[in-house]
Amino acid sequence: MSEVIASYLIHDSSGDFEKKAEGIALGLTVGSWTNLPLLEQEQLKKHKGRVVSISELETCNRVNQYAGEQLKQAIVKIAYPAANFSRDLPAILTTVFGKLSLDGKVKLIDLDFSTDLLQAFPGPRFGIDGIRRLTNVSDRPLVMSIFKGVIGRDLDYLGTQLREQALGGVDLVKDDEILFDSDLTPFEKRITTGKAILDGVYEETGHRTLYAVNLTGRTYDLKEKAKRAAELGADALLFNVFAYGLDVLQALREDDEIGIPLMAHPAVSGALTPSEFYGFSHGLLLGKLLRLTGADFSLFPSPYGSVALPFEEAISIGTELTTPNHYVKRSFPVPSAGIHPGLVPLLVRDFGIDSVINAGGGVHGHSDGAVGGGQAFRAAVDASLKGIDLRDAADTSDALKKALDLWGTVEVHA
Amino acid sequence: MSEVIASYLIHDSSGDFEKKAEGIALGLTVGSWTNLPLLEQEQLKKHKGRVVSISELETCNRVNQYAGEQLKQAIVKIAYPAANFSRDLPAILTTVFGKLSLDGKVKLIDLDFSTDLLQAFPGPRFGIDGIRRLTNVSDRPLVMSIFKGVIGRDLDYLGTQLREQALGGVDLVKDDEILFDSDLTPFEKRITTGKAILDGVYEETGHRTLYAVNLTGRTYDLKEKAKRAAELGADALLFNVFAYGLDVLQALREDDEIGIPLMAHPAVSGALTPSEFYGFSHGLLLGKLLRLTGADFSLFPSPYGSVALPFEEAISIGTELTTPNHYVKRSFPVPSAGIHPGLVPLLVRDFGIDSVINAGGGVHGHSDGAVGGGQAFRAAVDASLKGIDLRDAADTSDALKKALDLWGTVEVHA
Repeated sequence: MSEVIASYLIHDSSGDFEKKAEGIALGLTVGSWTNLPLLEQEQLKKHKGRVVSISELETCNRVNQYAGEQLKQAIVKIAYPAANFSRDLPAILTTVFGKLSLDGKVKLIDLDFSTDLLQAFPGPRFGIDGIRRLTNVSDRPLVMSIFKGVIGRDLDYLGTQLREQALGGVDLVKDDEILFDSDLTPFEKRITTGKAILDGVYEETGHRTLYAVNLTGRTYDLKEKAKRAAELGADALLFNVFAYGLDVLQALREDDEIGIPLMAHPAVSGALTPSEFYGFSHGLLLGKLLRLTGADFSLFPSPYGSVALPFEEAISIGTELTTPNHYVKRSFPVPSAGIHPGLVPLLVRDFGIDSVINAGGGVHGHSDGAVGGGQAFRAAVDASLKGIDLRDAADTSDALKKALDLWGTVEVHA
Repeated sequence: MSEVIASYLIHDSSGDFEKKAEGIALGLTVGSWTNLPLLEQEQLKKHKGRVVSISELETCNRVNQYAGEQLKQAIVKIAYPAANFSRDLPAILTTVFGKLSLDGKVKLIDLDFSTDLLQAFPGPRFGIDGIRRLTNVSDRPLVMSIFKGVIGRDLDYLGTQLREQALGGVDLVKDDEILFDSDLTPFEKRITTGKAILDGVYEETGHRTLYAVNLTGRTYDLKEKAKRAAELGADALLFNVFAYGLDVLQALREDDEIGIPLMAHPAVSGALTPSEFYGFSHGLLLGKLLRLTGADFSLFPSPYGSVALPFEEAISIGTELTTPNHYVKRSFPVPSAGIHPGLVPLLVRDFGIDSVINAGGGVHGHSDGAVGGGQAFRAAVDASLKGIDLRDAADTSDALKKALDLWGTVEVHA
């Protein structure tokens, strides 16, 4: 059966989840059922929603006190026939979480697509394996760094910062997500200037760093702009997908004239995910849906830093992005925010080698600047993969030693 | 100064809102300040964010128990210079609520644009006055009804339902938001068939009903599809804007070749608004931003029905949509869900005559069907405006009498 099964976490005071679930399954599809003539039931059968399962959870006193009423909780799964919607994510989201998002304490925690529907999504163009080919890095997590304090600065300032970061040996550098098109640092100039600088570093050092430029502007200008970026030789595009829409990301991915890696930034997504009662689960939004619509990279708050996700939530994103699937390539998890070299063993333990280690302050704040910062991360990655304690590795890496002196290490339990 | 001032509701355990606010104002703009050389400070001055105000609120025990820690609350206002972003909503949202949406319990409750920025938004093409001209209704709330149970049905079924609704005298009929393009009821056929039916009713009765057809599909196909709709004579477009993006709505509004009224449906917006701690305020998202980006109508849950908003929240949406502004036309508030004729005096008291009274079950569930339902609503509106008690008005309207017998009335306190 061609269908999508939506899983909801529902908090409800009536506690009659059978009735609630049946109300959803009918209300969001054919509307009514038992009062229909048999002939109409026969005609509408293939459009009727179906309650797949109801799993009651334990009630939570803390939640009840907050809500001021006794709330029962359940995971409710409803199947929606694909006959009801066109094969696009806006139609699917409107079906499974349109009106329902407004109907009390309902959180959409997962979507399971039948194979034919899954195949309607492109998935990432490159995926983890493709990005590894592009970066020529096969056996370790990638290392990425972020421009810092570039608002109001000119192209020279950005260029110098880009060069420093590349010289430290990072694999990727991404734009600040709040850097938009401006006279100081126009989009196309960032691409061409960045390219020249990174080509220069490659000639000097033999290490190739890729630069993800921030694709911004009006929705209906993005495709042309992205094509122009690709023509100019841009390595990758950073994209604030949640300030636009997942379907826009998908369209960028599907356009063969764009054809370069897409890096999804989680900006604005915090409006959608953190509530216990409402919105989307992290794994669904920043994991499964970004992967299906075509992000090669998904950035999200790590569980360690100052801006942190709960551990299980961060892990669930990584799992959704990397679990092998015959129809969809894997995407790189990029746990971010507050990352310093001392955290690398933890990142490797929790997100594996198929992840990107991403830092801003942890690169630029190094006592030898971004060059030392990048070197420290690369040394920390190498040590972690060999199972060498960072403190020991610091004996042969001055950059790592300085980083550990500054930020410390974190004890890792297997 | 060209800037946007964002107001946030922040719950924070440190309670040091001065520091938090300063961190936001700098972190989301120039990055750092006090450690910069004076020359650089001078260069960056026009890019630096500014703390406008901090208003601490009373702490809330219920919240503290839920959070498991003592949280202080404050409304913090930060000004972001327009020099930092391009003049599009995705850039503005990424600036004011990109990373910050991920940084703890922060809810974006308002955005105040300086006049030049405000003028970058189109506002509704028609607005309340323009829609009144189109519908030829100047002195009362409009009445709208919604198709019911149309999933899996064919064009004949829709046509019959449309005719019944129009015969009842409603001013507008809107598609079900979960009706997408399908072989049973293709988009273009819905427009042409609907038009023929409504022309027929107009000839019979002299009353003109407008039909808002659901604009759906892939983002990059919408503009062409909307233009085709306009060419075919569509009266208005229903649009699930939150399954796409506000910038898409704005682009539809700005395209003169589309040029017909836009009706924003709140589907999926419940993922963004109801949390006390996260997301957007209702007034901002369903009020101000929909108006600025060009919705002629904004649908939202009324405060009365089964799917209900808290009273003040619903009112705030209405206020944002209708408060006169020299630069932006007003949009029609459409408080929806669970509306029946007995609620009309309440709707008029709370949302005024510049609103749309919108019902699904309250029209179709009438004992005389949708014809009787529409008549009952129109009679209830006329009585309410004249200050006549609905029970008295029912003496001269059989349709209203039957509606009141079925759904009752609600006592209205001034």
